[in-house]
Amino acid sequence: MDLLQYIDSHREEHLNDLKEFLRIPSVSTKTEHKADIERAAQWLSRQLKPAGMEKVEIVSTKMHPLVYGESPQRPDRPTVVFYGHYDVQPPEPLELWTSPPFEPEVRKGNLYGRGTADDKGQVHIHMKALEALQKTQGELPINVKVMIEGEEEVGSANLWDFVQKNRGRLKADALVVSDTSMLGPGVPSITYGLRGLNYFQVEITGAKQDLHSGVFGGAAPNPITILAEMIAKLHDKNLRVTVPGFYDDVAKLSKAERKALNALPWNEKEFRKTVGSPALAGEAGYTIVESLWCRPTLELNGIWGGYLGEGSKTVIPAKAHAKFSTRLVPGQDPVKIAKQVERHVRQLLPKTVKCRFEVLSQSKPWVAPHAHPIFLKAREALERGFRKKAVFIREGGSIPFVTQMHDTFDIPCVLLGFGLPDENAHAPDEHLSLENYYGGIKSVALFYESLARGVAG
Amino acid sequence: MDLLQYIDSHREEHLNDLKEFLRIPSVSTKTEHKADIERAAQWLSRQLKPAGMEKVEIVSTKMHPLVYGESPQRPDRPTVVFYGHYDVQPPEPLELWTSPPFEPEVRKGNLYGRGTADDKGQVHIHMKALEALQKTQGELPINVKVMIEGEEEVGSANLWDFVQKNRGRLKADALVVSDTSMLGPGVPSITYGLRGLNYFQVEITGAKQDLHSGVFGGAAPNPITILAEMIAKLHDKNLRVTVPGFYDDVAKLSKAERKALNALPWNEKEFRKTVGSPALAGEAGYTIVESLWCRPTLELNGIWGGYLGEGSKTVIPAKAHAKFSTRLVPGQDPVKIAKQVERHVRQLLPKTVKCRFEVLSQSKPWVAPHAHPIFLKAREALERGFRKKAVFIREGGSIPFVTQMHDTFDIPCVLLGFGLPDENAHAPDEHLSLENYYGGIKSVALFYESLARGVAG
Repeated sequence: MDLLQYIDSHREEHLNDLKEFLRIPSVSTKTEHKADIERAAQWLSRQLKPAGMEKVEIVSTKMHPLVYGESPQRPDRPTVVFYGHYDVQPPEPLELWTSPPFEPEVRKGNLYGRGTADDKGQVHIHMKALEALQKTQGELPINVKVMIEGEEEVGSANLWDFVQKNRGRLKADALVVSDTSMLGPGVPSITYGLRGLNYFQVEITGAKQDLHSGVFGGAAPNPITILAEMIAKLHDKNLRVTVPGFYDDVAKLSKAERKALNALPWNEKEFRKTVGSPALAGEAGYTIVESLWCRPTLELNGIWGGYLGEGSKTVIPAKAHAKFSTRLVPGQDPVKIAKQVERHVRQLLPKTVKCRFEVLSQSKPWVAPHAHPIFLKAREALERGFRKKAVFIREGGSIPFVTQMHDTFDIPCVLLGFGLPDENAHAPDEHLSLENYYGGIKSVALFYESLARGVAG
Repeated sequence: MDLLQYIDSHREEHLNDLKEFLRIPSVSTKTEHKADIERAAQWLSRQLKPAGMEKVEIVSTKMHPLVYGESPQRPDRPTVVFYGHYDVQPPEPLELWTSPPFEPEVRKGNLYGRGTADDKGQVHIHMKALEALQKTQGELPINVKVMIEGEEEVGSANLWDFVQKNRGRLKADALVVSDTSMLGPGVPSITYGLRGLNYFQVEITGAKQDLHSGVFGGAAPNPITILAEMIAKLHDKNLRVTVPGFYDDVAKLSKAERKALNALPWNEKEFRKTVGSPALAGEAGYTIVESLWCRPTLELNGIWGGYLGEGSKTVIPAKAHAKFSTRLVPGQDPVKIAKQVERHVRQLLPKTVKCRFEVLSQSKPWVAPHAHPIFLKAREALERGFRKKAVFIREGGSIPFVTQMHDTFDIPCVLLGFGLPDENAHAPDEHLSLENYYGGIKSVALFYESLARGVAG
């Protein structure tokens, strides 16, 4: 049977199989789901044999297991490593779900459930694409190594350890990842750029203990106010970051790239609707797409201090905290930027308080030379699988693993995303468009098939 | 037996009795202590008979009972209402207590335990002063009404209701309250001024849901940043509040009062030590005492938004919140100030966010004409009871009840505080100086005795 016919004739079977996968609440942050995580790893490992994997392993780590598989490796064929994750975000708040998060349900062409878009649905696309190749061709046309972790939503703590220990074994010609989004409905996309990240936490300490705001107010430093005053100085009126040197190393966008990005069928109206704020707010002088993908930012991600409960408590707290992060673009070095940010923050604070400054995580920005033949093959496969024009996009998010793999193995990383920006990954009513799920299976199968003729041409 | 001799000869008995009172964990915020609250009310009501109360009632309210007592009321004698509270703050964090919070222990002349200073110890002072008068004179020299609530630490929700329903019965010539502090060790004090309060909460909403800071960062409004920028604009460089009109109605301090307040034996060094911040911070142009007692302030009491957990989560939250309060001084009207503050806050916010502004509580500032004879009698009683010079002070905190009683009954309110500023009311290792406890019993007994010769002279 023809590859695409095979996939079309197994739609129902594939969907039921995915629902089974989604029913396992593999929430990686919560110890109470430890057994579910194990069950999800087991379930997934059973998918690998029919997907052409000869060796299948459930690799124990310090936290959650990684599922690893290898198809028969023939030296004359190109080798691809596929990466995905089977763990999911916690489903809370439960009351905001239309249907229960772990009872997948199809409504209006979308499959609803935790993990549909991020990332079980996308992992499943690859399993079924490989299975289709295996079933219709009797073997996979390329060497495939599958690496699916269970810790992505909690920081991938043990993934890099596994990669380091298996550097020889993981050698490949390309990395394929499906954990990103398409530009919009009907626009299959290949992501060729990601922003880097610095994530900071500050603790501001004034008094040695919480104080009564009546008894002490007017003479004691208030760390909440002082933290707010510091934060207020991190951006200027044009919403540019005030950290000295912050923009120094930002790589200039070529005119051609700027033009290409701004010409994308990007739906600004839809974006405004998704955000839903009274108005948007961004750095002056750049289009929204440029701001989101190609400009560095500084965003507050959390703030807390004093009394957070119901009603009133008249306290001047001893401490106030904030978490904030900088998104970085090609050219910027996270280590250098972190030093600049710390120096700036300390200079902005008055002498009435002490400050503890921590860098919680760092990842480099990444941009791929998408003129490389493998990207063109990916585009062709997407266009055949979806019967739509495919585009090259960048994303504002960060996937540290991609940069690490790129830097370590010096291989192209192809990011094929089948989610959509408004599919509520990490939020209630997460869903995946079935059109993209089925189109994804076809495209990925066609892509892997096309690589049999060589990764480089 | 002589009054003071009687008190001296019952020191151990009084202390043991107070310890019994303190052992009842009458924490009003927690429903699990409901039975303890009832037990404390029962215990206290049994104190009232020996203290000369003829009628004793435990008045049920919607939450915690109020203990009410009345001595025989003779029309030819002045009448005093005594107010206090028998509920206490939660003791947490328990690990910071040197001895368990509900197992009172004497160390170095101080009695340690939750409620020692705030307010069981001070209530007990009055019970024992009245008992000493009753025992040594066969009857109380004045008409006394005792009103001790169990909800002070949770906002006195039902106290005012009780007062309104018993306006006739509560008629009196003066209100006596012991729930404040002395200026310092060895300085018996009468508080004649309190600041008023406005307590606000704001909710800033940007996007209609939490957003991924990678995907949306650079174009969506960040409510934490915007809240911080708003807060930063609430004070100028001299730490003056920028709300237009905020200082317009502040009553000017007379030269004499300013001089008297600044001449008090106030220990700045001790104050700096208690705060413990690298430096103090206050409005330019005023001494610390003036700033604390006679100047209005705007203090942030709580802030929260985004991710508050461990590690990093790259979110741009939909909402950010802050609680803040203004302390008000004589002349300022809380209702007018609240309107000014709301208008200012809304004007400071950009159009990219929505704001919900709430006034959670309000109380008027209060200042007493302390040249009134009852204040002079109080001072004399304190000086005899403590054998030290007594002083008139103001406080930075707010006791809405005092203002309400003053406004409703048009009577002088005498605030006799026997706590000390560093005795950790509301914090671990709360304690009460035994010297002040015993001095308090003597002073209060002498004060009540002196009132027999008339409240007004």
